[in-house]
Amino acid sequence: LSVNPMRESKRAPSVREIMNTKVTCIKEEEEIKTAAKKLLRDETNHLPVINNEGKVVGIVTTYDISKAVVRENKQNIVADIMSKNVITTSPDEAVDIAAMKLERNNISALPVVDKEGKLAGLLSAIDLGKLFGRRWMK
Amino acid sequence: LSVNPMRESKRAPSVREIMNTKVTCIKEEEEIKTAAKKLLRDETNHLPVINNEGKVVGIVTTYDISKAVVRENKQNIVADIMSKNVITTSPDEAVDIAAMKLERNNISALPVVDKEGKLAGLLSAIDLGKLFGRRWMK
Ligand SMILES: C[S@@+](CC[C@H](N)C(=O)[O-])C[C@H]1O[C@@H](n2cnc3c(N)ncnc32)[C@H](O)[C@@H]1O
Repeated sequence: LSVNPMRESKRAPSVREIMNTKVTCIKEEEEIKTAAKKLLRDETNHLPVINNEGKVVGIVTTYDISKAVVRENKQNIVADIMSKNVITTSPDEAVDIAAMKLERNNISALPVVDKEGKLAGLLSAIDLGKLFGRRWMK
Repeated sequence: LSVNPMRESKRAPSVREIMNTKVTCIKEEEEIKTAAKKLLRDETNHLPVINNEGKVVGIVTTYDISKAVVRENKQNIVADIMSKNVITTSPDEAVDIAAMKLERNNISALPVVDKEGKLAGLLSAIDLGKLFGRRWMK
């Protein structure tokens, strides 16, 4: 990964340049406990929920797992706690637009989807912070 | 001290300028379920844990709450799941340094502490993303 947006040009880089392409995902019929385990194992806060075609149908985060703690045993599977209206970005979107989506929706990551709605990566607020830190550092 | 007025605008802002000052916190003897409720109520992922003097003694996040789901009933109170080595920032630190701390430690927020170690605010990766988006927008 080498991004140096300021030196080369003033244009914001595209999502593709900073997104994570190794993304752990889950299916909606899996158990909440499995989701919690995956989140802890991969030290992440976000699991895109995909269907059999690889399309994004939801997102489940550590925030949603907290619902299971509060409500105790009322929920069992990912579909019970996931968010269904997923706010996404695309590989070619500019990172400033993505940053604005995070802010406006008070969320910390966006699944990156390709033209067919298939998962291509994940962009998190930490990735944006990284880029941002580097800009002032140089 | 010599200040170059042209340079001024290129300096990174300080944490004080973008931190959240209304921060929900918790005590270490409180129940995990109480922590989960507070996180959901305030739509946040981070609760600084403070002692009776208002000093930061830990941080508990939705990520830590997931541990309670995986381990089931082995843990009961915040002290059982919180992180004790808290990475913090101060109101006068430059945001690029804060962004680097987030990146290096793969975390999404920093409690802001004053000189006495007391909680002064919270700085999240989303706040940095906000600032970052704005820079490219204008
Ligand atoms: C509103 S946020 C509040 C907490 C915190 N700001 C965060 O980023 O997680 C938490 C909720 O947002 C949802 N969420 C996270 N990323 C999302 C996305 N890209 N699209 C839709 N919902 C999302 C999660 O499923 C969770 O229920």
